Amino acid sequence: MLPFKTLLNIDKNSPEAVFKQIASQLVLLIQKGILLPDMQLPSTRLLAADLGLHRKTIMAAYNTLIAEDWLISKERKEYRVSTLLPIIKPRTYASKSKSSYKAESAIIYDKLEHLPSFPKIAAGFKVIVDDGFPDVNIFPVERVSQEYRRLLTHQTLKKSTATWNIDGSPVIKEALSSFLNDTRGLNIEQGNLMITRGAQMAIYLAASLIIKAGDKVLVTSPNFFLADAVFMQLGAQLITVPVDDEGADVDAIADALEKNNIKLLYIIPHHHHPTTVTLSSTRRAKLLELIRIHQLAVIEDDYDYDFQYQYSPYLPLASGAHDGNVIYIGSLTKVLGSNFRLGYMISTPNFLHSAVKLKMLIDIRGDALMEGTIASLMENGEFSRFIMKANKLYEYRCDSASNLINSELNHLVEFKKPQGGMALWLKFKENYQVANIVNKASSLGLQLIGMPYFKSSDLTHDAIRFGFASLNEKELEFAVDVLKKITFAK
Amino acid sequence: MLPFKTLLNIDKNSPEAVFKQIASQLVLLIQKGILLPDMQLPSTRLLAADLGLHRKTIMAAYNTLIAEDWLISKERKEYRVSTLLPIIKPRTYASKSKSSYKAESAIIYDKLEHLPSFPKIAAGFKVIVDDGFPDVNIFPVERVSQEYRRLLTHQTLKKSTATWNIDGSPVIKEALSSFLNDTRGLNIEQGNLMITRGAQMAIYLAASLIIKAGDKVLVTSPNFFLADAVFMQLGAQLITVPVDDEGADVDAIADALEKNNIKLLYIIPHHHHPTTVTLSSTRRAKLLELIRIHQLAVIEDDYDYDFQYQYSPYLPLASGAHDGNVIYIGSLTKVLGSNFRLGYMISTPNFLHSAVKLKMLIDIRGDALMEGTIASLMENGEFSRFIMKANKLYEYRCDSASNLINSELNHLVEFKKPQGGMALWLKFKENYQVANIVNKASSLGLQLIGMPYFKSSDLTHDAIRFGFASLNEKELEFAVDVLKKITFAK
Repeated sequence: MLPFKTLLNIDKNSPEAVFKQIASQLVLLIQKGILLPDMQLPSTRLLAADLGLHRKTIMAAYNTLIAEDWLISKERKEYRVSTLLPIIKPRTYASKSKSSYKAESAIIYDKLEHLPSFPKIAAGFKVIVDDGFPDVNIFPVERVSQEYRRLLTHQTLKKSTATWNIDGSPVIKEALSSFLNDTRGLNIEQGNLMITRGAQMAIYLAASLIIKAGDKVLVTSPNFFLADAVFMQLGAQLITVPVDDEGADVDAIADALEKNNIKLLYIIPHHHHPTTVTLSSTRRAKLLELIRIHQLAVIEDDYDYDFQYQYSPYLPLASGAHDGNVIYIGSLTKVLGSNFRLGYMISTPNFLHSAVKLKMLIDIRGDALMEGTIASLMENGEFSRFIMKANKLYEYRCDSASNLINSELNHLVEFKKPQGGMALWLKFKENYQVANIVNKASSLGLQLIGMPYFKSSDLTHDAIRFGFASLNEKELEFAVDVLKKITFAK
Repeated sequence: MLPFKTLLNIDKNSPEAVFKQIASQLVLLIQKGILLPDMQLPSTRLLAADLGLHRKTIMAAYNTLIAEDWLISKERKEYRVSTLLPIIKPRTYASKSKSSYKAESAIIYDKLEHLPSFPKIAAGFKVIVDDGFPDVNIFPVERVSQEYRRLLTHQTLKKSTATWNIDGSPVIKEALSSFLNDTRGLNIEQGNLMITRGAQMAIYLAASLIIKAGDKVLVTSPNFFLADAVFMQLGAQLITVPVDDEGADVDAIADALEKNNIKLLYIIPHHHHPTTVTLSSTRRAKLLELIRIHQLAVIEDDYDYDFQYQYSPYLPLASGAHDGNVIYIGSLTKVLGSNFRLGYMISTPNFLHSAVKLKMLIDIRGDALMEGTIASLMENGEFSRFIMKANKLYEYRCDSASNLINSELNHLVEFKKPQGGMALWLKFKENYQVANIVNKASSLGLQLIGMPYFKSSDLTHDAIRFGFASLNEKELEFAVDVLKKITFAK
């Protein structure tokens, strides 16, 4: 007899009945080729004795597997693995043949060598400083579990299967359009909105429809690197304008529009990525005028709008007068945390009609359960309360981080406290290199995982984003301590 | 006083405490601009009387909102809406200004007019016949809810936030690579696997890396329309080969390879979409030889492999000798239902490295919670048992549907019973037009939502896929009845 006592792992504290655990684990042994077709299983009496369980438990497990065609029995005495199992092939499992995937294929493809890889996070870190993410410790796990459980029924599944809803399910479109109208001074209808997997997919879809190889795209320098990467992947030529303390230089935008045939402007007016600067209201008005005069196509990326630490924030360009030329992109991921990839795009119904067609080629449906769960929280006001709670916490953390870094690290960095968002833009002073600091910090257990930006013609210093929102007091102190240690030791 | 009794909707049976319900709904009234900044709220006594609740409940609601900065109180007597609310702008809400999105934008973009739109499903249908989807009524909702709840903790969220895992979380990669090795005779490692949102995203990523405008792509005719649409969107020229009862015509493939510079072959060997035919083992062997001789890049789309109603199914091309040239794409969506978009791509580590970079531009992360939930079910054998259960049910339904359609609709259609999968390929006889039948059926409450295929140089008859897997006995009878009725009435 096989050593079933070792092979079968019974957890009496599991919510799953013991006989079901045995049944499932026998299936795994069959699939792994440990129990082969036609092999005889121990009698219920024998296996019960071996596992220290009641015989009836083993009987129930065997009977379940007989009903499911995994086992066959002769006169309820002899139990054997079925010889007619469609989904297992122990013969190939047993063979030690070399996988064809060990070879280097002859496939000719675009290797995308110019694109960055995401940094791998070293094991053994103590604290991670991200480039501006929410603190998942305040996420309402109980309520979300409750809603998810309430919605995960055969009826809901049936309903969501019966419709395509490539652009998002009706419940989330209704709840979200209302939320956006209320919070952003927009005045949109459901036909102006589509749901995507995060803001990134919205950027990709909009840019793919607009940009053809050789087109000129106007961006700030520096700019959110994943937006630049999309534009370059589509063959765009990037024309850049600088960013200063009032945000993107709108005079430079006007100038670039005069000199070039610009196909698209990509801009982040609130807490610009990476520099965290907010576009001033004067420049906002001037930019809206340029958009109308030039009938300029614009992607407004407003990833961070919900987090503002002042009491009369500027509204997005999208809520101004732009003749429909502003494609407004945002994300709930910055509220809910990175596990919940829910982005959206706002535009005219005609533009969205084409965007939905393109999305169909990439990602046929969203997650109706997740969308339904979040829609419930929006409809009953919990979502807004959660944002308010997060705002208070992050505003406090923005102050703490700014104060601590000002007092402890002013030899190393300079920054301007942002009006909102979740990160500081730390500019390294002349003698310090960001790559060097990131490496040294990593060896002391501090992972700075924001994308580093290097000194260049557009950037007078090395720099990196320092996400404060997800750091509690101890973590912040640890991070500042490590940075202090490695720079004074220098 | 505002009519709070009407404005506030209290559900005493809700799991949420009554004071929390009141608090959340007051927030909504503030956001909607019904309660304006500095407006005074009724005293706790008055509101309690109005709503028929205890005064302490109202007090708890007000105190919650004070703690969250929505309300301010003077000496715990007078309660007012705060004037310092960052995320609401009643002034813009109140304005009736016309949305800029009513205008037709001047944006120049690719309208994708050549791509089909998904059919909208008419309201009031009685039965939907899809083009081959699982029956969500057997989906293990309880177990999935349990696992989801177990995983949705601050700790899990923190962990998944700390890593990018654009290619899928480690748990699902481990569980899935083991499952695929066991069931498909593959011999892959985790570095050969990446997770995508459904098979569609995998097709898009692989094709985007390989195809440049003008490249020739070899496909069957007819072919899965969303794959053809991707290739055409990328500027490919489609070279077609016919499909007969043994699957794709491999001699025609050999011929096409001689005559053309083919960049890529796209093929569905198991239950070909749309025709449901399975590639014979002789042709499979011959095709593998062609792949080796020509070092041909291949996308093998094996969306339906897990459902086979014979006891020695053919293995995928990917498990044969192909020198790494077969990119193997599959999906768990056909097992779990359309709410769970979990696809995957198998290839060499180098090819996947570039595919992950491209995915980063479109969709930065997957859903770690969903991936974790499904991985748990795989690891303990429940996933395999579920497939077995579904297989038995669908095999039975395949028989029933085949028998009933044979006996009742042989004037209308002909088809060949497939070896597996979830759909029949109904070829309409000479006098019948698919569009006409679909319309008439719809008016009687039967929605045929598979993509219709029309008579053409490659197709001798109109045709449509008839998904039997999701239909119970009554639904099947209704569908056949309606089709009989409208065709005899003709």
